[in-house]
Amino acid sequence: MRARIGILTVSDRAYRGVYEDLGGPAIQDYMSEVLTNDWEPVAQVVPDELDAIQSALISLVDDEACSLVVTTGGTGPAARDITPEATEAVCEKMMPGFGELMRQVSLQFVPTAILSRQTAGIRGRALIVNLPGKPSAIRDCLDAVMPAVPYCIDLIEGACLTTDESRIKAFRPKSK
Amino acid sequence: MRARIGILTVSDRAYRGVYEDLGGPAIQDYMSEVLTNDWEPVAQVVPDELDAIQSALISLVDDEACSLVVTTGGTGPAARDITPEATEAVCEKMMPGFGELMRQVSLQFVPTAILSRQTAGIRGRALIVNLPGKPSAIRDCLDAVMPAVPYCIDLIEGACLTTDESRIKAFRPKSK
Amino acid sequence: MRARIGILTVSDRAYRGVYEDLGGPAIQDYMSEVLTNDWEPVAQVVPDELDAIQSALISLVDDEACSLVVTTGGTGPAARDITPEATEAVCEKMMPGFGELMRQVSLQFVPTAILSRQTAGIRGRALIVNLPGKPSAIRDCLDAVMPAVPYCIDLIEGACLTTDESRIKAFRPKSK
Repeated sequence: MRARIGILTVSDRAYRGVYEDLGGPAIQDYMSEVLTNDWEPVAQVVPDELDAIQSALISLVDDEACSLVVTTGGTGPAARDITPEATEAVCEKMMPGFGELMRQVSLQFVPTAILSRQTAGIRGRALIVNLPGKPSAIRDCLDAVMPAVPYCIDLIEGACLTTDESRIKAFRPKSK
Repeated sequence: MRARIGILTVSDRAYRGVYEDLGGPAIQDYMSEVLTNDWEPVAQVVPDELDAIQSALISLVDDEACSLVVTTGGTGPAARDITPEATEAVCEKMMPGFGELMRQVSLQFVPTAILSRQTAGIRGRALIVNLPGKPSAIRDCLDAVMPAVPYCIDLIEGACLTTDESRIKAFRPKSK
Repeated sequence: MRARIGILTVSDRAYRGVYEDLGGPAIQDYMSEVLTNDWEPVAQVVPDELDAIQSALISLVDDEACSLVVTTGGTGPAARDITPEATEAVCEKMMPGFGELMRQVSLQFVPTAILSRQTAGIRGRALIVNLPGKPSAIRDCLDAVMPAVPYCIDLIEGACLTTDESRIKAFRPKSK
């Protein structure tokens, strides 16, 4: 089974075309570098609107059958930043450890890491993870959480992801 | 007053008897090792069902008058894992610091620690804490949080717990 | 524009006058030491009542036009401690990174830091941050989060805060 990975760019400016989407391509580059299983990206760009983000997340999981959906953008404190709320609204269960670890890792680079409200959760057989908007921060966050992502997706019965171990060593405990 | 400590094993397999409950006994052994006050365990095993977990938690606090209730199992991302949701549903206030610290400590051992959704909260005069299912992880998590547990239970007017200081040094600030 | 900073002491005993409010003055001293922009404090004392705390927070943000509101007290596990619940009830979005970092920093001093339920959130153009009741813990927590506070308030279009860099270096990323 070919794994499908949703890449959702949340940005008013990228959506209107005033600003080149750098976050989405950064995620796709990262996955190409790290994943060794057969996979394909399903990329979308939406504005910072609750309905638009929720609909895109639902469609990526329910219609596109993505096992992993990563968002970029909209996690800050500004009025238009609502990606975490949209994520929580469509998830059946939340995974607080992802946001905690990503903020902790980002804090090693900038004290404003605490302003990121990024979270993660489970919808059906998909893991949804919020990432920051800035490409360098995207890589730092993915490096932190990726070792746990394949096993998480095994547990929710999504696609089997494998990684280039020289880059990211996916950890799968021996038994449940 | 003899302290009562609820030990709730949440596991479909342990409930059906297909699998020996290792988590519950590991918690009881740990408490026997660490606590120096008079106490007794109140152990129960329930399946991974929201109603069953909630009813057991309510009964352990309201009927059995436990001052501390520790659960084991059901904190992962899988469809049947709902212990944190059941815990939140019966608590009047949540204690996010417990889950944060337990995940942080577990991260020193396995990168998949971020997949644990364990939390803690207060119901009446009881502190409820979710622990992982695996006995070795149970010990690591209890070692991390136990220094703060007796003072927490003092503050909610539960039983007075004392510990073997060579094992766990309970911290009680001088004044409120 | 002169920045306004709300300082809300939440304490039954301070409200009734049985106990001198030490938390509020500690926050004001800290801000005087650290801030270099023109600002004025708006101080209030309320009892540990949900309605009173919520009304005070709403008034400090909506009527008093504070860009930053810091509370002290009421974040523990005791029955009367409900400052985090009141904060969450009046905020449009929550900022989990503040509580996580403040607990982590406090853990370096006392293991009971995990008992603090302090949180932070955004209401309109104001950042609301819960601090502990104890003056020394207030300073440790503010030292941890203040480098990120001015940029946070920029993003929500509140007043421009500047700091004495020998004390706290406010971090503002070059571009969004």
